[in-house]
Amino acid sequence: MKTKDFDTRDFLQTGVEDLLPSVSVDCVIFGFHEGTLKILLNKFKFHGTWMLPGGFVYKKEDVDDAAYRILKSRTGLDKVYLEQFHLFGNHNRTNIQENEKILNQIDMGSEKPEHHWFLNRFVSVGYYAFVEYSKVEVYTADGEDLRWHHIDEIPQLYSDHNKIIEKAILTIRSQIGNIPIGYELLPEKFAMTELRIIYETIFNKKLDRRNFQRKMLSTGLINKLDETSKKWGIKSATLFSFNKEKYEHAKDSENALFD
Amino acid sequence: MKTKDFDTRDFLQTGVEDLLPSVSVDCVIFGFHEGTLKILLNKFKFHGTWMLPGGFVYKKEDVDDAAYRILKSRTGLDKVYLEQFHLFGNHNRTNIQENEKILNQIDMGSEKPEHHWFLNRFVSVGYYAFVEYSKVEVYTADGEDLRWHHIDEIPQLYSDHNKIIEKAILTIRSQIGNIPIGYELLPEKFAMTELRIIYETIFNKKLDRRNFQRKMLSTGLINKLDETSKKWGIKSATLFSFNKEKYEHAKDSENALFD
Repeated sequence: MKTKDFDTRDFLQTGVEDLLPSVSVDCVIFGFHEGTLKILLNKFKFHGTWMLPGGFVYKKEDVDDAAYRILKSRTGLDKVYLEQFHLFGNHNRTNIQENEKILNQIDMGSEKPEHHWFLNRFVSVGYYAFVEYSKVEVYTADGEDLRWHHIDEIPQLYSDHNKIIEKAILTIRSQIGNIPIGYELLPEKFAMTELRIIYETIFNKKLDRRNFQRKMLSTGLINKLDETSKKWGIKSATLFSFNKEKYEHAKDSENALFD
Repeated sequence: MKTKDFDTRDFLQTGVEDLLPSVSVDCVIFGFHEGTLKILLNKFKFHGTWMLPGGFVYKKEDVDDAAYRILKSRTGLDKVYLEQFHLFGNHNRTNIQENEKILNQIDMGSEKPEHHWFLNRFVSVGYYAFVEYSKVEVYTADGEDLRWHHIDEIPQLYSDHNKIIEKAILTIRSQIGNIPIGYELLPEKFAMTELRIIYETIFNKKLDRRNFQRKMLSTGLINKLDETSKKWGIKSATLFSFNKEKYEHAKDSENALFD
């Protein structure tokens, strides 16, 4: 159980003075558990629609720092692989009616102004994050529900959040060679099947088992271990690990196309 | 000579009512001319510092549409390869003192409010564009200077605009396989040297002439023509062209890593 970083009602009442107008942040947080890729979603009890964990930017805060703050407040994690990937700026993406409903469901007392800042248009900066599932402390404080959702079972979300997830996946797909997705999502020792499932999910298609393993090993970034595990079934699966040193080096080096 | 899309003074006076607060757009516009990659920069006479062509977003306008509008107003071009690449959101990126100087240099009459909207913090959505140099009508209306600058001779720019250019180049470099940079920047028929110079500029290093040509031809996207030209010197250079159909197909298809 974690402490909330703000009280929603207080926040909606006082936000306008402390926050950058028009700008919000939404995080697509990926985790891998029991053979499936999952996304962390939250829901306010007074609202009832699932949404991406997100928030706003303080006037004296960098947008990237706001994303880290939001991520920490929802997962408890400090050092996380987090990447900004797109600014969602369609003029009709903010559902003013829905936000009005949210405001009405909160007792704003006599403080409710004529035109509330939360009823303005927002652009949203999209970030994706890869976290190690087992390390996340899912936040279950009163008034909010936060849960992992199987990537194939994402419900209809608030605003354009389904599109934000779609764009995150397309971005990861198009840059997969530069993104350490398996390295960040998997535990230290893993089966090749687990890594393949992550790629199959991102590419939304089945990949040939043998070709995949061959391609992955040919990068030189993965070591085959002298260990097996029956964790995934009756048959023993060979374990693999990432070559951390080489991985860090590959991350830092320039695109290898013209090396 | 083109018409301005707004009068700067009118704009700064009335902007706050029509514009999305806190959000601006900046465009890194690349062109290729006489063997060098160039970037289009503008300067207001009353200010004197070069900057990226940019602007603001109307309250009822999509951010992407604002970028297209700004690009058209500065280049006369309608159909342009334009990509959003990053949101610049550091809290201290807006130089309030510099903006105050700009305001003071414009005669705001009695309309100047106590705290002007232009003195708030802005986040900026960065776009890069590739244009065919010869098609750009450089805008030379009174009060503004707009000029191509050699990419190696970019002066100290307004705010964090040098960093925006740097990030644009890093983004293009890391995604070069998916970005039709030569296709968009070069005329229909070109010498391989011209294409190589573009890549050398983006990668900031010399590339081997033969290896480069071999790699480029191996993509199947470039045709060697049965034509030569002495345009680039005494020696005849072989001409090449992009296979437009294949190029369009490659652009639309998914990342080929696991095809």
